[in-house]
Amino acid sequence: MSPKITTELLKHLRQVMKNPRYVQEPVQAYIVPSGDAHQSEYIAPCDCRRAFISGFDGSAGTAIVTEQHAAMWTDGRYFLQAAHQMDSNWTLMKMGLKDTPTQEDWLVSVLPEGSKVGVDPFIIPADQWKRMSKVLRSAGHDLVPVKENLIDAIWTDCPQRPCKPLITLDLSYTGVSWRDKIVALRSKMAERKVMWFVVTALDEVAWLFNLRGSDVEYNPVFFAYAVIGMNTIRLFIDGDRMMDPAVRDHLQLDSTLEPEFKIQVMPYGSILSELQAVGAGLSPKEKVWLSDKASYALTEAIPKAYRYLTPYTPICIAKAVKNAAETEGMRRAHIKDAVALCELFNWLEKEVPKGTVTEIVAADKAEEFRSQQKDFVELSFATISSTGPNGAIIHYKPVPETNRTLSVNEIYLLDSGAQYRDGTTDVTRTMHFGTPSAYEKECFTYVLKGHIAVSAAIFPNGTKGHLLDSFARSALWDCGLDYLHGTGHGVGSFLNVHEGPCGISYKTFADEPLEAGMIVSDEPGYYEDGSFGIRIENVVLVIPAETKYNFKNRGSLTFEPLTLVPIQTKMIDVNLLTEKERHWVNEYHQQCRDVVGAELERQGRHEALRWLLRETEPLAPLQ
Amino acid sequence: MSPKITTELLKHLRQVMKNPRYVQEPVQAYIVPSGDAHQSEYIAPCDCRRAFISGFDGSAGTAIVTEQHAAMWTDGRYFLQAAHQMDSNWTLMKMGLKDTPTQEDWLVSVLPEGSKVGVDPFIIPADQWKRMSKVLRSAGHDLVPVKENLIDAIWTDCPQRPCKPLITLDLSYTGVSWRDKIVALRSKMAERKVMWFVVTALDEVAWLFNLRGSDVEYNPVFFAYAVIGMNTIRLFIDGDRMMDPAVRDHLQLDSTLEPEFKIQVMPYGSILSELQAVGAGLSPKEKVWLSDKASYALTEAIPKAYRYLTPYTPICIAKAVKNAAETEGMRRAHIKDAVALCELFNWLEKEVPKGTVTEIVAADKAEEFRSQQKDFVELSFATISSTGPNGAIIHYKPVPETNRTLSVNEIYLLDSGAQYRDGTTDVTRTMHFGTPSAYEKECFTYVLKGHIAVSAAIFPNGTKGHLLDSFARSALWDCGLDYLHGTGHGVGSFLNVHEGPCGISYKTFADEPLEAGMIVSDEPGYYEDGSFGIRIENVVLVIPAETKYNFKNRGSLTFEPLTLVPIQTKMIDVNLLTEKERHWVNEYHQQCRDVVGAELERQGRHEALRWLLRETEPLAPLQ
Repeated sequence: MSPKITTELLKHLRQVMKNPRYVQEPVQAYIVPSGDAHQSEYIAPCDCRRAFISGFDGSAGTAIVTEQHAAMWTDGRYFLQAAHQMDSNWTLMKMGLKDTPTQEDWLVSVLPEGSKVGVDPFIIPADQWKRMSKVLRSAGHDLVPVKENLIDAIWTDCPQRPCKPLITLDLSYTGVSWRDKIVALRSKMAERKVMWFVVTALDEVAWLFNLRGSDVEYNPVFFAYAVIGMNTIRLFIDGDRMMDPAVRDHLQLDSTLEPEFKIQVMPYGSILSELQAVGAGLSPKEKVWLSDKASYALTEAIPKAYRYLTPYTPICIAKAVKNAAETEGMRRAHIKDAVALCELFNWLEKEVPKGTVTEIVAADKAEEFRSQQKDFVELSFATISSTGPNGAIIHYKPVPETNRTLSVNEIYLLDSGAQYRDGTTDVTRTMHFGTPSAYEKECFTYVLKGHIAVSAAIFPNGTKGHLLDSFARSALWDCGLDYLHGTGHGVGSFLNVHEGPCGISYKTFADEPLEAGMIVSDEPGYYEDGSFGIRIENVVLVIPAETKYNFKNRGSLTFEPLTLVPIQTKMIDVNLLTEKERHWVNEYHQQCRDVVGAELERQGRHEALRWLLRETEPLAPLQ
Repeated sequence: MSPKITTELLKHLRQVMKNPRYVQEPVQAYIVPSGDAHQSEYIAPCDCRRAFISGFDGSAGTAIVTEQHAAMWTDGRYFLQAAHQMDSNWTLMKMGLKDTPTQEDWLVSVLPEGSKVGVDPFIIPADQWKRMSKVLRSAGHDLVPVKENLIDAIWTDCPQRPCKPLITLDLSYTGVSWRDKIVALRSKMAERKVMWFVVTALDEVAWLFNLRGSDVEYNPVFFAYAVIGMNTIRLFIDGDRMMDPAVRDHLQLDSTLEPEFKIQVMPYGSILSELQAVGAGLSPKEKVWLSDKASYALTEAIPKAYRYLTPYTPICIAKAVKNAAETEGMRRAHIKDAVALCELFNWLEKEVPKGTVTEIVAADKAEEFRSQQKDFVELSFATISSTGPNGAIIHYKPVPETNRTLSVNEIYLLDSGAQYRDGTTDVTRTMHFGTPSAYEKECFTYVLKGHIAVSAAIFPNGTKGHLLDSFARSALWDCGLDYLHGTGHGVGSFLNVHEGPCGISYKTFADEPLEAGMIVSDEPGYYEDGSFGIRIENVVLVIPAETKYNFKNRGSLTFEPLTLVPIQTKMIDVNLLTEKERHWVNEYHQQCRDVVGAELERQGRHEALRWLLRETEPLAPLQ
């Protein structure tokens, strides 16, 4: 990796920062955040503005350019990568280290008095604007919205915003029609006494209308906004994709409908002016509901007194609780995914000893097997295919410079998943194709104990996921070990592989309580820098639990694994398991045999079936 | 309990709310919070203003009186009590119920336009003022500070503010001199670049100067403030207690000292004017450090730009980590406390069958045995002595109306503790003096499993206590049971029995990470309304743990029980314990024998020693 040369680019940017064609008044600093106008985790190439100006293309980072300086804030995952990708024009600000200033404090320390700090009001979330603006103002500076994005102004070969065809999902996939979703949303709006709801997150628009797209890699979403009133539906979306008869039919655009279900299709770019018109026409007590993560531009369109902001929208919460059709779809997707992985691991077992399988080859092979499955659409994230020391890099993605060959002497970690039309998968397995050392088995077994502790946990209805995080760590903690990431995230149904509002993490965030129908990952790990990485990840469904008693009639919950891929028994030190844990492994493997075995049989994949049967032999009873 | 008749009182209060002698402008509402000017948990009789005006004397509640209404906000623990104690002038606002308005929202709904809402600026914490004031202002009202407390104005027989003699603690108790504490504090101040630190919490003043008092029941504190500068020490305290030669000597008031250690003693009431003088004399960049829970009055004395507010003060954090002298003192106190409880339980075992021991008698007997121990000062909180259904009332305190007789047919729960000059204790034991039912034993055993899970937990340095809370519940959750309170609180060293900044709770609060030397309680429970209550509480010390590995060189921690009182084995269903748990119980009981047995022997308490030996017989091996 050689750094991107940014001298000319920065010069150009500093020119437009003073050019009245782009800014009302010159700005002394310009902030380039990571995100897009929808605060997405994964973004389209045309939104990779921070990577364009700096060269650093990690998933998290904020660039700030002043007349004298260019600085990049990113976190521990990316210190090395950012240092490699950026030239000497840039100062790396290592977030999480004690002496690293915040962006605001740094700005205050370098700016001349009374400076203006510019930012694209569509990219910065309203809550972040508020925080920054307050600090800057108290130091005598001003945070100002710059309507035209200044990176776009100098990015001459900026790729076009994607505008790919849409996929319509019928009731067999979604379980609920978009009309019924609108009805449910309006009832939530009525409860909170709001008249309008603004849908800004891409996966929320997709979920609400039972549509999918492919504008962003790995995430089946499309660029759009929606504004839902008590009697109106406005969908802001570009391109001729609205001319597709299937889409018109799905949205009933040409049918005679009750007016409150008539969808008005408007240009994507008109969201701001339309929202301003809504804002201007509000009567007293008419509120507009927005996510508090929505952009500053859209939030400001509604006068403050009329805003109703929440960390999680009613769509985010409804989307997290999967209905029967979605759950069944997720089950089918996970069975197909397991078939692909049985094929892959059977193939690796034969090929790895030959010394010809690299991390990239293995990742490609995994994709190949997945793509043979029905309704496969694409991967759900960049495959983490890592062997030996690369396994200890938690967000590793093999590239030619780092690509390592799998061998019988090293642990192999594969974290991968796919989008199928009926569901989204995300699974990690850690394998050894030779003979693991006693220490490797010991660490693997602690991770497995943590995985089981979460998966088998029984907890009261209303429990938040963060209260389960320590269960995943307890066996590691007992021996002085740990892992430095959360234990689980919400998973979408043929949608984003990471979604809110629930999760399992030691970090205290405002997670919503777990409820039956939610789907999260369970993925403890252990990483030894320079040696190996271990992670065991299943996607699990929250289900009601039967318990002996029922305190305060609250009911209890537990998890059911949707992922059904064997956990390599060769890596388990059975003597470290309790009888209950051994039983859990055997039950899990029996389920893999029953369910995935039947599908392998049906698909005529006999060699993979033999592999599955061998890998799921019950663990011998404890001595 | 008959309600307090408040008609005349309220009439009188409404008069002074309009009387220019007390208020600059009439106030249309007056808020009476629970606390005192130090935001204490336990308050002196002269500060029980809310109880005076309403009759409701629970530990938490806020009264608001308008021209038309009188309303009381309190939480679920006190709904019944408040309803009994208040007359029909009052509306009970049940906090935590969905339809209960917040104080601010209620005020907005009942007040005429442009109202003034008054509150004593010394009683309301600054953070709460900020929140309320914002909501009221946005609705066109004003929150205004009323300097003279309007309850005091009508409380003709208000008790005097206590002003009891002080106790000086020498190095053998405190381990660190007050001079060294000042030096350490100034170094923290220098780190944060603040010039002044304002000590507002009573236990922080007491800790800093190695003094104790008895102005507030159960809490060995005294009414005082302190303001520490880089070169000055001001102590605001009333009464002739500063004339006590022991105190003068301890504080070196009459010695020739370096000026930066010279304590200026000032009247308690002059804190505001002195702080205003400090505030007026600040040069740019000179900051003043205050707790964000400090009163609005004191916070406002410092111009906003000069304030440095934190949730936990450096004294709060330093105080939480006990040094060797404090730890040894706590050990001694707990051994003496265990001696008293062995005596008590031996006595109860003989007396209960006679049917003459009531909850109050048992509580008094516990106090009697404790008072026989060296350096006993007072109880550390009101004894919870409860049998049968009373045990299910978590904050129960026996009074003649509820006083129940202990019997061989009911579970008895005793949660009690004392202040000794060398340490503070807090212990709960649940006993049966007859034959417990299988169900009672089952529930007790789950609670015990939770207690052990926390006590024996090993966790990385830097872990926050709230991450351990679920360990205490896991065994209960497995059977559909739970308890509706936190698992542990910080404990002071001959100071408040509840102190920050650490704790173990499912509630997400900004707890500081646990570190070696901190002391917390471990007290899971199970409560069955109308039948019984179970709680097992030890005070435990955070200590370094030896582990097989040491991830990232972080080190690990665990707990050592300071409380050494037998856990009734009769109540344990041994078949529900793991081998590890059985071993823990036997080890714990062996320690009780060794340590408390020796002390009983030394004190010649042979009958109690025989009781101890019988109660600490090892549990038989599992079948």
